[in-house]
Amino acid sequence: MSIVLSRNSQVRVMENTVTNAEKYFGQFCSLLAAYTRKTARLRDKADQLVKQLIDFANTENPEMRATVRNFAEDLAKVQDYRQAEVERLETKVIHPLKLYGAHIKQTQAEIKKFKQVQKNEIKQLEKLEKLRQKSPSDRQMISQTETSVQRASVDASRTTHQLEEMIDTFQKQKLKDLQKIFSDFVTIEMVFHAKAVEVYSSAFQSLDSYDLERDLEDFRAKTHGVYGHHDARPLKDTTPSPTVPWSVPAVPWSLTGQSTQMAIQSQRGDEEESTDHSAEEDPVEDLTGQGQTPHP
Amino acid sequence: MSIVLSRNSQVRVMENTVTNAEKYFGQFCSLLAAYTRKTARLRDKADQLVKQLIDFANTENPEMRATVRNFAEDLAKVQDYRQAEVERLETKVIHPLKLYGAHIKQTQAEIKKFKQVQKNEIKQLEKLEKLRQKSPSDRQMISQTETSVQRASVDASRTTHQLEEMIDTFQKQKLKDLQKIFSDFVTIEMVFHAKAVEVYSSAFQSLDSYDLERDLEDFRAKTHGVYGHHDARPLKDTTPSPTVPWSVPAVPWSLTGQSTQMAIQSQRGDEEESTDHSAEEDPVEDLTGQGQTPHP
Repeated sequence: MSIVLSRNSQVRVMENTVTNAEKYFGQFCSLLAAYTRKTARLRDKADQLVKQLIDFANTENPEMRATVRNFAEDLAKVQDYRQAEVERLETKVIHPLKLYGAHIKQTQAEIKKFKQVQKNEIKQLEKLEKLRQKSPSDRQMISQTETSVQRASVDASRTTHQLEEMIDTFQKQKLKDLQKIFSDFVTIEMVFHAKAVEVYSSAFQSLDSYDLERDLEDFRAKTHGVYGHHDARPLKDTTPSPTVPWSVPAVPWSLTGQSTQMAIQSQRGDEEESTDHSAEEDPVEDLTGQGQTPHP
Repeated sequence: MSIVLSRNSQVRVMENTVTNAEKYFGQFCSLLAAYTRKTARLRDKADQLVKQLIDFANTENPEMRATVRNFAEDLAKVQDYRQAEVERLETKVIHPLKLYGAHIKQTQAEIKKFKQVQKNEIKQLEKLEKLRQKSPSDRQMISQTETSVQRASVDASRTTHQLEEMIDTFQKQKLKDLQKIFSDFVTIEMVFHAKAVEVYSSAFQSLDSYDLERDLEDFRAKTHGVYGHHDARPLKDTTPSPTVPWSVPAVPWSLTGQSTQMAIQSQRGDEEESTDHSAEEDPVEDLTGQGQTPHP
């Protein structure tokens, strides 16, 4: 009977092994799937940022435009690697874990079959025991039942053997697969992070080489250039006496030297204004306190 | 009048610069905040995985237990670095972008003030124009209005100067800050990814050194050891005739050599069972077809 009990304990160890695998592989599968989804969401957000960066770049002067575009391109590259990461996690981590569900179900069905065989052995043993107590003299009946017990025991032994083999294979496969899945996870993550380091290193160089002064020169030219490039004088058209223009102070910045005598500047053309404005530009540039780096 | 128009265009350029900054800095801020939140969610999922891995490790044999624990610890380390990444993004990227909101509002208020001064100049100019048309002979009135125009123009010029200075400073600061914020973003990401590569490299080594055969030996010992460690024989206690035990086949695996004569094993103790089981263990190990690596 003790071998029957042993088989019982053995089957419990096996059941635990499979149930445990079912529980944890299921959890690993859903957590790693969630991890992969969160990674995909991170990629989506970064993709949105890339779009906004490109939109913004188009509103900036050439220097910042190029810098922001490069940054956006590098950020997009990292997202391409993240996309590859997501796809690899799905193929090499989540898919094999999902397959385990079916594998575990199959093993559990085998264990159930074995338990039926084991039950039959116990049933036959109990029958023999009863017979020996009730009719110890019925040799023929006892002999027949002994044969049935023997057959049931042989069945149980053979099935135990098969089950042991199956569980051994199951456990071996489980350990191998776990090592493989975790190693694949680590490799996929490692490759992604290494690529990201590479791309961000280049992005850092690009951002570092941004020439602020050159950009500011462009900006100042744009802001102040408004004077020079303005050729429409719409208010003049509504003026019936264009030959009597409005008086404006000739040197608006020299606040201390305000003359009560107004300079009539009827012939003041755009070119003169432009020149005039260049004179205005200087104090602004002086006030910024920045040395100007001329374009090469 | 053209200088008034120029100022008008100039103020439009300035308004666009600030409005543009408001729009894009706002978008960058919310997208980078979302990016940071998604990163935090990824960290949370990985933390859950770490917990499950530790739980699972505790159900495994020493070899896999140590391997899974090491893997969980490395995964936890990466999450610590991710947490540092999240905190740094908040401090060095999102916070400065948020501060920009207030900075932009302040600049917009200054532009509004300037537009009032500019409006006043135009009003005075229009008044003078009307006067010259309606009462060209009223020299005194014209002279007075000319003085008002001059004052308004001086005011507008001074304010333009201040505004130009402010916008120049604003743009310079904006470009500097953008470069700084993007560089900080890139540095934070780069540091995180570099640390992740480092940790995952070590994790890979640890997973790679996992000894499957040693683990399987432990598992087999556990599964088969059940025979040897079972000392309770509960069914025997319910048996009124312990001296007449059930018959079990002596060599259950030798299916071809089934004997009709049942071996009575009344004195079969636990030790014998253990020995008996050792004999049973061999064919299983043979069937796995794996060379056993003995423990060192």
